[in-house]
Amino acid sequence: MSGKLSEELERLGADVLVVLGAHGEDADLAAFAGAAKLGDAFVVAPRGGAPRLAYLSPMEREEAAATGLALLAPEQLDVGRIARERPQAGAFLAAVLARGLEQAGVAPGRVALAGSWPAGVLVEACAELGGGGWSFVSGSEAMRRARKAKRAGELAEIRRVTTAVGEAFAAVARLLAAASVRAGELWVEGERLRVARLKREVALLFAGHGLSQPRANIVSPAEEGAVPHTAGTPERVLRASEALIVDLFPKGLLFSDATRTFCVGPPPEPLARAHGDVLEALRRAHSGARAGAHGWDLQQATCALLGERGWPTPVSAPGTLRGYVHGLGHGVGYELHELPSFRKEAGEDARLAEGDVITIEPGLYEPGPGGFGVRLEDLVWLGPEGPENLTPWPHELDPNAWAGGQRAAPGR
Amino acid sequence: MSGKLSEELERLGADVLVVLGAHGEDADLAAFAGAAKLGDAFVVAPRGGAPRLAYLSPMEREEAAATGLALLAPEQLDVGRIARERPQAGAFLAAVLARGLEQAGVAPGRVALAGSWPAGVLVEACAELGGGGWSFVSGSEAMRRARKAKRAGELAEIRRVTTAVGEAFAAVARLLAAASVRAGELWVEGERLRVARLKREVALLFAGHGLSQPRANIVSPAEEGAVPHTAGTPERVLRASEALIVDLFPKGLLFSDATRTFCVGPPPEPLARAHGDVLEALRRAHSGARAGAHGWDLQQATCALLGERGWPTPVSAPGTLRGYVHGLGHGVGYELHELPSFRKEAGEDARLAEGDVITIEPGLYEPGPGGFGVRLEDLVWLGPEGPENLTPWPHELDPNAWAGGQRAAPGR
Repeated sequence: MSGKLSEELERLGADVLVVLGAHGEDADLAAFAGAAKLGDAFVVAPRGGAPRLAYLSPMEREEAAATGLALLAPEQLDVGRIARERPQAGAFLAAVLARGLEQAGVAPGRVALAGSWPAGVLVEACAELGGGGWSFVSGSEAMRRARKAKRAGELAEIRRVTTAVGEAFAAVARLLAAASVRAGELWVEGERLRVARLKREVALLFAGHGLSQPRANIVSPAEEGAVPHTAGTPERVLRASEALIVDLFPKGLLFSDATRTFCVGPPPEPLARAHGDVLEALRRAHSGARAGAHGWDLQQATCALLGERGWPTPVSAPGTLRGYVHGLGHGVGYELHELPSFRKEAGEDARLAEGDVITIEPGLYEPGPGGFGVRLEDLVWLGPEGPENLTPWPHELDPNAWAGGQRAAPGR
Repeated sequence: MSGKLSEELERLGADVLVVLGAHGEDADLAAFAGAAKLGDAFVVAPRGGAPRLAYLSPMEREEAAATGLALLAPEQLDVGRIARERPQAGAFLAAVLARGLEQAGVAPGRVALAGSWPAGVLVEACAELGGGGWSFVSGSEAMRRARKAKRAGELAEIRRVTTAVGEAFAAVARLLAAASVRAGELWVEGERLRVARLKREVALLFAGHGLSQPRANIVSPAEEGAVPHTAGTPERVLRASEALIVDLFPKGLLFSDATRTFCVGPPPEPLARAHGDVLEALRRAHSGARAGAHGWDLQQATCALLGERGWPTPVSAPGTLRGYVHGLGHGVGYELHELPSFRKEAGEDARLAEGDVITIEPGLYEPGPGGFGVRLEDLVWLGPEGPENLTPWPHELDPNAWAGGQRAAPGR
């Protein structure tokens, strides 16, 4: 990460990167501090120099030490005095940042800023520091670029989380396969099977693996699944012969992300056809997703295929809410959505490269009464020996496809 | 909330509050948008006018609609065109914010900014908007003040989360009480009892209630508990006659927060004495925690008591790492730590008032080899009829105290 970062800082004309993390909760900060449980903290990373972690409470000294980073302790930062003399949050932040930069040997100049902080406090602090010879440029994009290629430990963590995602799909498929149908509704263990039951099953499984779901999940039947980001109404009773999108994106230290679409009982013809088209799009996208490819080219190829099959796409009908309505994928890491992008405007940030972990997730949507959505999303690592599908699991609508365990996927 | 907000905006000389929420994940944004699962979003709240929720992807139209707020849809915000013409993140944000303000009928002027956003992107966007007649002042404190008194639905959610916290303590106590001691180590079900087992038990219980632990938790034995924010090493085997701090702070839509300290088997005399002193401090603090009291007065009273008992405190020994080393409590809500403060410098932000939900959490710490920590933390609602202890559970070191169910606490 540090070589890429130095390069980005040079491009920005910045002497130093400052990464802010209020409550220690920030993707950029996590790329430095890992799993340490910190309160307010920041990293000062001089161009070409070793990063230092500044933490603001002596109560966190053991957590901070466990990161293995060089530290700027609260006493060095003079946190106690500053808190007394400048209790207002913006003034406090400005003084602590200035002190941290000074302690790291950085003279006033241009700072690339990344991480996140309460917005009003940050803007006030930067305005004050501006009067002291500091200027600020966005280091947010630099950090996203530095985080794009995954390091070995990061990939291992994504694999660990992905294993749990596979188990969660298997558990969902097991429940769906075990359901009986009464008057069109699914029943399990003497009760109507509701979205809430599946969400509970998934939550318990992830908790057992020590994972969280900071962005929740999507368990979205039929008409709800027809609007891609609808989370799913807990009370909704599931029905036979309807689509059910299950999109899971839990987090350990990093995220995983995968989607399957299920249907208990025979799918209506439009659903079966849409599923076939999505699966074909997924297969083709897998074969195109190679280091060096441009995300927008892959998106265009998907639009071409689905357009040939008669669906509106963002290319043929910009802004469409029917058919293929979103991008083909995104990078996954400390953030759920990160680089590479698959957008035309992203330029080289949409170039797939070795080390990237990306989703490939074509989908088709029929909103409105009687509507449905179908989405199939695999997670792929672009390794030195080519792409590896981290989610080589069944793509069938029929949950019984999961009964025999996890099988090879189209990716490889 | 809105009356308080208007008052704060007037004080700031701002015509409008803008609350930013990247990934829809922000405490200030949640105070408006509740549990909606949004991506990047912001609220535009003109002083005295109805707030509008701006969301940036049509895929989230159902989630946005479910908030019941007036909406600024992506089409109104011209997101598609802006994304094409201004792909750089800061320029994009500046243009979308300007458009959202315009659509809400707000003319260029002073904006109070709250919520959070990637730091570099935000600073660039504000710099650009500054050239267009906009100026920015921190609305972060205004939002914290507006969020201080809990609304009925917020209190109900805190109660719900707190019920789960009580169940989690009972589960932990049950495991500890069931442990047998071999060569000083605790054993349960044929295995050494480790911190990881307790963390797993807690995680599963919270998951079953639909709760997350975005700030993790603290399960911290003996020498680890002697540094208050140490999360606890998963592999650490628990031992008889040592202190174990269990500090749980899960989140539904809002947080709860409570701590108990356990000891299996007879506590060593220094631990028993520290526990007695902490319990006495907790009792006295409960009796002082009333609407109208100042948090710093309560903190001083706690320092006086613990000082009399021979412990260093932040008053007698500023910066001490031994004895009583932290504040007496904090507000709890959409953030784990919010107003009221218990700090001297906080002025009226440390004034307890009706509607507040606060922790009261004296603790004593003996760092170093053979060290330990003791902390007891209750959660209190300052209701119209006086304080209500939301955590009326045992405070004993002995986990068997939990066997008979939950009993009345010193608070009332």
